[in-house]
Amino acid sequence: MQIVPDGGVTAPLGFEAAASACGLKSSGAPDLALVVSQRDCSGAGVFTRNQLPAAPVTLDRETLQTHSDRYRAVVTNSGVANACTGPAGLEAAREMQRLTAESLNCNPEQVLVLSTGLIGEQLDVKKLEVGIRQSYAKLSKENGTAAAEAIMTTDTRSKQVAVRVELPGGPITIGGMAKGSGMIHPDMATLLAVLTSDANIAAPVLQRLLRSAVDRSFNRISVDGDTSTNDSVLILTNGASGVEVKDEVSVARFSEALDKVCLSLAHAIVRDGEGASKFVTLLVVGAQDEAGAVRVAKTIATSPLVKTALAGGDPNWGRVLAAAGRAGLELDPSQLGLWISSDGVGELQLVRAGEAADWEEAEATKILAEPEITLRLDLGQGEASATVWTCDLTHEYVSINAEYRT
Amino acid sequence: MQIVPDGGVTAPLGFEAAASACGLKSSGAPDLALVVSQRDCSGAGVFTRNQLPAAPVTLDRETLQTHSDRYRAVVTNSGVANACTGPAGLEAAREMQRLTAESLNCNPEQVLVLSTGLIGEQLDVKKLEVGIRQSYAKLSKENGTAAAEAIMTTDTRSKQVAVRVELPGGPITIGGMAKGSGMIHPDMATLLAVLTSDANIAAPVLQRLLRSAVDRSFNRISVDGDTSTNDSVLILTNGASGVEVKDEVSVARFSEALDKVCLSLAHAIVRDGEGASKFVTLLVVGAQDEAGAVRVAKTIATSPLVKTALAGGDPNWGRVLAAAGRAGLELDPSQLGLWISSDGVGELQLVRAGEAADWEEAEATKILAEPEITLRLDLGQGEASATVWTCDLTHEYVSINAEYRT
Repeated sequence: MQIVPDGGVTAPLGFEAAASACGLKSSGAPDLALVVSQRDCSGAGVFTRNQLPAAPVTLDRETLQTHSDRYRAVVTNSGVANACTGPAGLEAAREMQRLTAESLNCNPEQVLVLSTGLIGEQLDVKKLEVGIRQSYAKLSKENGTAAAEAIMTTDTRSKQVAVRVELPGGPITIGGMAKGSGMIHPDMATLLAVLTSDANIAAPVLQRLLRSAVDRSFNRISVDGDTSTNDSVLILTNGASGVEVKDEVSVARFSEALDKVCLSLAHAIVRDGEGASKFVTLLVVGAQDEAGAVRVAKTIATSPLVKTALAGGDPNWGRVLAAAGRAGLELDPSQLGLWISSDGVGELQLVRAGEAADWEEAEATKILAEPEITLRLDLGQGEASATVWTCDLTHEYVSINAEYRT
Repeated sequence: MQIVPDGGVTAPLGFEAAASACGLKSSGAPDLALVVSQRDCSGAGVFTRNQLPAAPVTLDRETLQTHSDRYRAVVTNSGVANACTGPAGLEAAREMQRLTAESLNCNPEQVLVLSTGLIGEQLDVKKLEVGIRQSYAKLSKENGTAAAEAIMTTDTRSKQVAVRVELPGGPITIGGMAKGSGMIHPDMATLLAVLTSDANIAAPVLQRLLRSAVDRSFNRISVDGDTSTNDSVLILTNGASGVEVKDEVSVARFSEALDKVCLSLAHAIVRDGEGASKFVTLLVVGAQDEAGAVRVAKTIATSPLVKTALAGGDPNWGRVLAAAGRAGLELDPSQLGLWISSDGVGELQLVRAGEAADWEEAEATKILAEPEITLRLDLGQGEASATVWTCDLTHEYVSINAEYRT
């Protein structure tokens, strides 16, 4: 498996992209992205579990249920989330789908739609129409990066990646772009990712592999614990490489490459977390099962007190243990161990048998001053483990979110 | 029912209190509080569900299981939480209990102990011994306020209250003190409350009424969503009033007065929430059952995005709905309504049928500028409702918690 330099959604064969500014963002920045395959695609999607899903989420779920294997495009707007917009919002999403199909000369059911931005505002379909036409005219291989930029909201940088992997039948490529500066940001909310591949793969297999990849990447990150109304990860595979993904080896290698793409984009989102100054890896080991390890890791990852201590570079291990203690699992204090480390500096044990281990404040402070930190918590119960990625909670996060709309 | 002016734990007949500074706090501030009844008491307690309970929590659970109805005192230290301290910590808690019993000339099993402060540090029993002796020498009715001050950590003001209520058998008084500047703060962690009454009430009834009062007060507040290792609410009733609480009317009135005391202390904790600039009442109505209403209200109360929007005075209703949507209940968007209000300014409907209602930004901003705000969310599913109290998430919260230990 190798990374394609500067690769994104157009790295796989047969995909083009484009972006335009149609005025949905008051700043005048690009706000419409189009990703188009020259050939019909298998498609799969994974969506938010929020009970108030945005209109595009509702529409895509409906569209993917047709199992047509004839998907051609993903159209995305930023600036307006089209969430909490009622029947008029769903109508606007359908219109967005229809207008894109009109440009591409295909059926609306062949187009998937995504939106991200402020919740509660209606989409201006007139503006969308102009944006879709302008983007269509600019479709090219080179504009993958422009598309990745057009889906940004509070993001400070665009996120894209592509990997190439050799399968028994030949080489295939998987590309992807994502936005999100928090697992969720209710205003300019939402994590969106669009993935593409030139592999030839059946939709049911694709859906299974996507769900598995998402569970181990996007579903393992947290910036602020708030789950968006718009979270969506879509993948289109057009088979342009002529390589089939059907046999066990091909499925395994494709799956591994897809995991890599999802993980890379998920990490990029955490690194760009709102106000984040540190990238934090939480590794929980010694759990009875993976679900328990995830639960403990996510409770630590969403603890304001742990996250503010990390922002302050404070080796406040009591907060980590207290968060673990409220995760809902039975724990035996006397079995707990906690270590901190960073790439540059070796591992330091802070907790042994549930109590303070013997360590120097200066050594701990040095590790926590690094921009990338790993916390390893051993529950001492079994063999299962899980990793979750998060960031710290800073003044900047409060500033961004207290002053966003005004 | 009437409030006793400046009343606290010594307002009921037969209770005395005192405080001293024994050096557990490096600042030299008072850090040991003693509350003593002249007569044997019924006792009841409600404790943290955290799986890593502090040593005093473990010891009090054990002590209350003796059901002796001969409790005499609660001794509390601040500065050190005696949590994550292993067998040595439990030994120190026992020593704290034993030393207090020695001063009072009673059995250790007649004394309950509480600790609050930094997690992971061992209690200095030598200092405790001095503090307990000094406090014992100062026991008086007047020192109730001093006791309430000695249990503070990051609290900016002490919290105490007392109410007097007329029962069929005569008047009784319930008093209480609490500390906490967040439902939890892992460092100077913990919500503690000590309640007293001169009513004569059997322990099983007392335990039931205390659990019910706590469920509707302390368990309905959140500052930062982190659950402490030390949370404890204790009550001692000594019967000094000569009034029995046994018949239905007395139990109902006592329960009402106990609710009032708990709610008053719980509200005082939210008002003193770390960095809080606003006191926020979240009222969820139209739920199918109370548990569902509590779940939605607590999800909103712990959403960093809702809490930062409140800090900024931003009528960002999308964040409130998005939080409700991830609470784990099935919701019908078209049934949702949201209103905001404050004492000074009337109610304003922000959301109707799950979409933006017709309102003026200026009017919403005016309400949100008030120090006390109510959000009322109607789920449109049934008749159940619940209220939860919280505060906003400010720069000050990050400062307090990122810079605490250093």
